[in-house]
Amino acid sequence: MRLSIDKEQFLKALNVTSKAIANKSADPLLANLKLDLNDRGLEVTGTNKEITIQCLVPYRIGEREIIRSAGLGAALINAKLLTEVVRRMDGTELALEVIDDSIAKIDDGRSSFKLNCIKAEAFTDIDLEPNGTILSLGCDEFASLVEQSAFAASTKEQRPILTALNLEANEGILTATATDSARLARKTISIDSDAKFRCNIPAKVCADVTHLFEGSKRLTLAVSDTSVLFLFDNVIVCSRLISGDYPVTRAIIPQTFNYYLEVNAQELLAAMSRASLLSAERDYVVKLSMAEDEVQVSARSEQSGSALESIQTFQFTGERLDVSFNSLFVIDAIKALKAEDVRVCFQAEMKPFVVLNPKDDSVIELITPMRTY
Amino acid sequence: MRLSIDKEQFLKALNVTSKAIANKSADPLLANLKLDLNDRGLEVTGTNKEITIQCLVPYRIGEREIIRSAGLGAALINAKLLTEVVRRMDGTELALEVIDDSIAKIDDGRSSFKLNCIKAEAFTDIDLEPNGTILSLGCDEFASLVEQSAFAASTKEQRPILTALNLEANEGILTATATDSARLARKTISIDSDAKFRCNIPAKVCADVTHLFEGSKRLTLAVSDTSVLFLFDNVIVCSRLISGDYPVTRAIIPQTFNYYLEVNAQELLAAMSRASLLSAERDYVVKLSMAEDEVQVSARSEQSGSALESIQTFQFTGERLDVSFNSLFVIDAIKALKAEDVRVCFQAEMKPFVVLNPKDDSVIELITPMRTY
Repeated sequence: MRLSIDKEQFLKALNVTSKAIANKSADPLLANLKLDLNDRGLEVTGTNKEITIQCLVPYRIGEREIIRSAGLGAALINAKLLTEVVRRMDGTELALEVIDDSIAKIDDGRSSFKLNCIKAEAFTDIDLEPNGTILSLGCDEFASLVEQSAFAASTKEQRPILTALNLEANEGILTATATDSARLARKTISIDSDAKFRCNIPAKVCADVTHLFEGSKRLTLAVSDTSVLFLFDNVIVCSRLISGDYPVTRAIIPQTFNYYLEVNAQELLAAMSRASLLSAERDYVVKLSMAEDEVQVSARSEQSGSALESIQTFQFTGERLDVSFNSLFVIDAIKALKAEDVRVCFQAEMKPFVVLNPKDDSVIELITPMRTY
Repeated sequence: MRLSIDKEQFLKALNVTSKAIANKSADPLLANLKLDLNDRGLEVTGTNKEITIQCLVPYRIGEREIIRSAGLGAALINAKLLTEVVRRMDGTELALEVIDDSIAKIDDGRSSFKLNCIKAEAFTDIDLEPNGTILSLGCDEFASLVEQSAFAASTKEQRPILTALNLEANEGILTATATDSARLARKTISIDSDAKFRCNIPAKVCADVTHLFEGSKRLTLAVSDTSVLFLFDNVIVCSRLISGDYPVTRAIIPQTFNYYLEVNAQELLAAMSRASLLSAERDYVVKLSMAEDEVQVSARSEQSGSALESIQTFQFTGERLDVSFNSLFVIDAIKALKAEDVRVCFQAEMKPFVVLNPKDDSVIELITPMRTY
């Protein structure tokens, strides 16, 4: 392999693919990126077995020459070192040459690095050919789908299925559901497709993928039985799916309510954040006390003391009601709604309640109260 | 204790004094700040026994009323909780009242907190009266003194004396020296005083104090046998001194040299930073290879490979010379000099060398080479 390459484009590919490299891995091979110069351009690939990211640096972007090649080939180079070396080099064009499958020489005229490298064949081949069900949608749409739902997934590995974002395409609707069993978030969007699938993608992968979009416009999902591919611009991300049946959640979302609170989102957020300082050691539990003429947020702990907050602008419909809950869950839910005002709908003191954006019924956030005091 | 107080001024005092609070302490009392409303204003004090910080919030600043008092008194309140509560409160004026020596009520009209608190008498009294030798100097002067020397102190506790900044006032000169035994930094400034003292202040304390200066102009040092006081504006910082004799360092700074390198500081920094990526696991050692027509920086490791950097603008006087050293030490030294060009003076390959600002002889940075290859 011998080429000269535009530094910025090369660095971009290294940064993106390095996201798949684990900090520590039992398999030292996985600390490397695979560089493969072929007819399409320079393919850079990183993997941690759970997730694989490949980025193609093409020969040209429009009129601009990005790569000048003097010989195809491939090699494995330490991801962290290569990225850091390229990042710090001053030149705008770098010469890269692999000698005897064992040394990668990188030169910009002033700095000359010789990095130890490994034969490309040592790398496990990962299938990045799209197969299974294909769905194309806007990157922005997918990003909002993930942002408004994935946060509710569990981060604990006891029940792996709950660490997933459940994605279901059916009859022109794509639904994303996440739950850690104490709360649930669901977002639906219309899709211009009759694709039909159900899959459980690690919620963290979904969030990480949206952070790689940058200026990308269109995303293609390819869902097979065991893996999902995300394709956008010159990037392919492949993730395993989480096996097992996702819990049936439709039935647990209540349809009728007895109490309604409408309140300014920022005011409620600020009051809960302040009050929950006093219950940090008790799961940040706060109590929301509602009546038609007064809404208060309170918290207390033996150790620290107590807090009482008055909400100034609100509208409450129903009998007097006290509900206690983990304030972090409600804060997450309100932030995900991205609404000026939120509506909170209750059935009863100890029944799950729902947080909504009154102007957008595509998102629903469900939270289970906590027994307290 | 009962008062109303300007929120911003109160928060500033809490932030400054909280810097003395250890994250974890064997003595739970030390998690508290002491609030003492007396004739001078509200004195806020925090301590971790090594260092004590006191900040006075006065009744008035110029024409502006900062505190309205309805009753003097004192109490201990958890530092972290109090600071966080005050920081998040919306009001610009807070009412603070201590009830029965056990509850501190804080109210801004919207939020009402009751924080558990403790009798002020539980706190160990720390003497903050200035005594011993007094020296007054500009805060900027002291900050530059510390910035250009304290980084060379040891961060390891094996030889506590080496964690100190050695401060010596004599015949109108104040000298700061720090060494971790592999490198040494010394800065001198003129002082308008005949004060005479020698003391060993924890280097970290000196650096921390300069970060508290903000807009302060004048600093008063009060050096006694066992402690030092820093007084500026409404703040007093008291630190214990490190006992023991500071190593005699005057004799180890060479006075004559055989080789001189003058080089652009930024270029040398960039070259060393890049090259040392290849020797991260070997104390970041790099080799500087100098001749009259060529200066190069190189590094290598079995594991990673090698780097070779050409320095473009330089002037070297002397025979051909190779010197290897921990690049982090030279990077620290060059940064501390704050010079466009630096001069590096060598005696021989394995003798300590000196890094200087050719335009400022008040600072000297000495570094011991490493044997390598």
